[in-house]
Amino acid sequence: MAKHDANLSLLFHALADPTRRSILTRLAEGSARVTELSEPSGLRLPTVMRHLSVLEEAGLIVTSKDGRVRTCAIVPEALAPVRTWLDEQRGLWEARLDRLEAFAMKAKKEDTQ
Amino acid sequence: MAKHDANLSLLFHALADPTRRSILTRLAEGSARVTELSEPSGLRLPTVMRHLSVLEEAGLIVTSKDGRVRTCAIVPEALAPVRTWLDEQRGLWEARLDRLEAFAMKAKKEDTQ
Repeated sequence: MAKHDANLSLLFHALADPTRRSILTRLAEGSARVTELSEPSGLRLPTVMRHLSVLEEAGLIVTSKDGRVRTCAIVPEALAPVRTWLDEQRGLWEARLDRLEAFAMKAKKEDTQ
Repeated sequence: MAKHDANLSLLFHALADPTRRSILTRLAEGSARVTELSEPSGLRLPTVMRHLSVLEEAGLIVTSKDGRVRTCAIVPEALAPVRTWLDEQRGLWEARLDRLEAFAMKAKKEDTQ
């Protein structure tokens, strides 16, 4: 549970930055070299590298090096825990609404008897 | 777009902490006073207040004060942009897979002709 929690925190932290989200959106269209990610965004290479390292630590991307060229690819299934967490929250909320509805119907029934 | 991006960043940042996620999970079961949130968790009141302020800034909870008692409630629909972002990412990824599949089928067809 603690490990699961730490992973979720890393994922949410990685997603909390617009540059990192735009890198993920770019990589969803296909793998890219680090220079291909820095040039269109106008970001300096060290800045891009720092964002990539946060994304890699969260497991959202993998990078590989061939000589001096580093290529990045997304790991789409890495977003699954985020989706699961959202579904769990929705489940809790809907269960609460169901309880409230049942309570209201019971109160109404008792009122009409 | 910039405003939408800033809102998403606030949401992801708010969710990047296990204590804040556990507060949301607790509030999904029903509204609670600040002391009800701090006592079971063993957290000091100022710590809880700081987390609540991050959640409130992201629009994930609302708080109201009656005398000296502050009550917190979740805003379930506030998670919608997170879900939308995840769906968009999945859409991009699936579109890419479709393109790859079409490309592979075309190559196979040309190969057998």
